[in-house]
Amino acid sequence: MFIIGELINGMYSNIAFALKEHDKKIVQACALEQISNGADALDLSCGPASKNPLVDLPWLVETVQEVTDKPLCLDSSKPKVIEEGLKAARNKTIINSTTADIEKLEILIPLAKKYKSKLIGITISAQGIPQNKDQRLELAAIILTHASESGFSIQDLFLDPIVMPVNVAQGQIKDILDAIHEFKMITNPSPKTIIGLSNVSQGAKSRSLINRTFLTMAVASGLDSAILDPNDKELIDILITAELILNKNIYCDSYLEAYRKK
Amino acid sequence: MFIIGELINGMYSNIAFALKEHDKKIVQACALEQISNGADALDLSCGPASKNPLVDLPWLVETVQEVTDKPLCLDSSKPKVIEEGLKAARNKTIINSTTADIEKLEILIPLAKKYKSKLIGITISAQGIPQNKDQRLELAAIILTHASESGFSIQDLFLDPIVMPVNVAQGQIKDILDAIHEFKMITNPSPKTIIGLSNVSQGAKSRSLINRTFLTMAVASGLDSAILDPNDKELIDILITAELILNKNIYCDSYLEAYRKK
Repeated sequence: MFIIGELINGMYSNIAFALKEHDKKIVQACALEQISNGADALDLSCGPASKNPLVDLPWLVETVQEVTDKPLCLDSSKPKVIEEGLKAARNKTIINSTTADIEKLEILIPLAKKYKSKLIGITISAQGIPQNKDQRLELAAIILTHASESGFSIQDLFLDPIVMPVNVAQGQIKDILDAIHEFKMITNPSPKTIIGLSNVSQGAKSRSLINRTFLTMAVASGLDSAILDPNDKELIDILITAELILNKNIYCDSYLEAYRKK
Repeated sequence: MFIIGELINGMYSNIAFALKEHDKKIVQACALEQISNGADALDLSCGPASKNPLVDLPWLVETVQEVTDKPLCLDSSKPKVIEEGLKAARNKTIINSTTADIEKLEILIPLAKKYKSKLIGITISAQGIPQNKDQRLELAAIILTHASESGFSIQDLFLDPIVMPVNVAQGQIKDILDAIHEFKMITNPSPKTIIGLSNVSQGAKSRSLINRTFLTMAVASGLDSAILDPNDKELIDILITAELILNKNIYCDSYLEAYRKK
C-alpha cells in the first residue's frame, strides 16, 4: 500500500497558521512525523483559507523538500496552482487531481507528461457526483481513454472512485468498493487505485473506527494507495494486518514491528 | 450477522472445571455474558478434556437452556455425541458439524432432519484439508448435493470453508475469502456461510487484531455467521461498523449503541 499522508492541509489550523506566518518549522515537523509513521508520500494542500495558493503551494513544496525527498502530492482543483507547484518541485510528484471533464483532462494530462508527474483521476465530472458503480466506471473509461490517447502511461494513473461519507450516501459505499475492484480490470496493465479515506467518515462520530473498517475492505478490493492520516496508529496497524492476511507481507510474530522497520 | 458465542468450550479452563465439577453457575454465567454482548446463539463443546462427552454435552445443553432460549450449536466430531445433545435440547439447534465425507453426511443429514436442526457443513474430508478455493468448492458441492438429494433445506445449511491460521497457511486466506463469496452463488437459494473465526489467529500474537481484520474482509465477502468471542468489544464494534458500511444497518451517529440496544 502506497500511503500518502494527508495532514499538510490548510484546512487544519496548524497548517493554516503556518501558511499565514510562513512558519517552515510547523510544516516540516508535520512532514517528518507522517514519514516516521509510514507515509510514502505527502499530500500538500493550501486549503480554503489560503488567499494566494499560487504562492502558497510552491512555498509548501519548497518547505517540505528541504527535509525529505519523498514524493509530493500537489492538491488543488486549479490547474494553474498545480503548475506552480510542479515548477517548484525537485521531488517526484503526483497531481491531485483531474476530473473526467475534457477541459481538465486536456490541461492536466499534458502537464503531468511535461513534468513527469503521476496523476490522480477522480471519477467525477461537471454533471456531479456519480450515483453508482456504473457511472464511476463510465467516468473512469473517459479518463483512461484520454490518458491512453495522449500517450500517458496508464501505470502512472491513479483512479479515485470518489469516496462519499457513510452518513450521507450509505447505499453507495458498497458500490465504491466494487468500483475499486473493477477499475483494476478495465485495462491491462491496470491503472492504480486510490481513495481519500477520511471522506468516508466526514461528519460522523467514531471516525477512526469507520476509517479503518472501510480501509480494510478497500484493501481486500484491491486498493493500491490511500490518502490518510498515517499518525492514526490503529489505522496503520489494521492496514498492515490487512496486507498480511492477503499474503502481501510474510508472517512473523512481530509482523507489525517488522513492517514498520522496513 | 448471526453471532455464535464460542466460549462454552472445554478447552477453556473455566469450562473444563465446570464440566468436571458439574458446576452450572460457571456455564450459565458464561452463557449470559455472551448473550448480553450480542451472541445470537451459543456453541457448546466439551473439548478434549471431557472423558464422557455422551453425558457432558447433554449436561451443557440442559444447563444453558435453564437460562436462555437462544439456539444452541452442538459441537462435536462424533455423531453419537451430537445425537445425545439433540435429545436433550428444547431450544433450536445447529449441528456443528458434518464434513464432506459420505459416511458422515449419511448420518448427520438425517439427524438434522429428524431433530429439525440446522447443520454446519465444513469443506474438509478424510483426504485432508483443502489446499485452495477450488478444492473447497468441490467439497461444498458434495455437501450441497447430499443435502439436496436428502430433502434437507439448503437455507438451513451453513457452509464453512475451514479457516486456517495465517501463521501456517498464509497463502490460503485470500482463497478462503473468495470461497465465502462463491459459496453464496453455488445454488439459488443460497446456502448460508459460516466461519470459526479464531482459527485465523491460532498461535499468532496480535490475535484480536488479526481476528477483526479478517472478519471485516469476510463480512465484505458475504459472510452470514461466525463462531467468535462476543466479549471482544473491539471485534463486535468493527463487525457492527462493517455491516453499517455495507448498508445492512441504517446510519445514525450512535449506531454502535443503537445496534447493541436492538
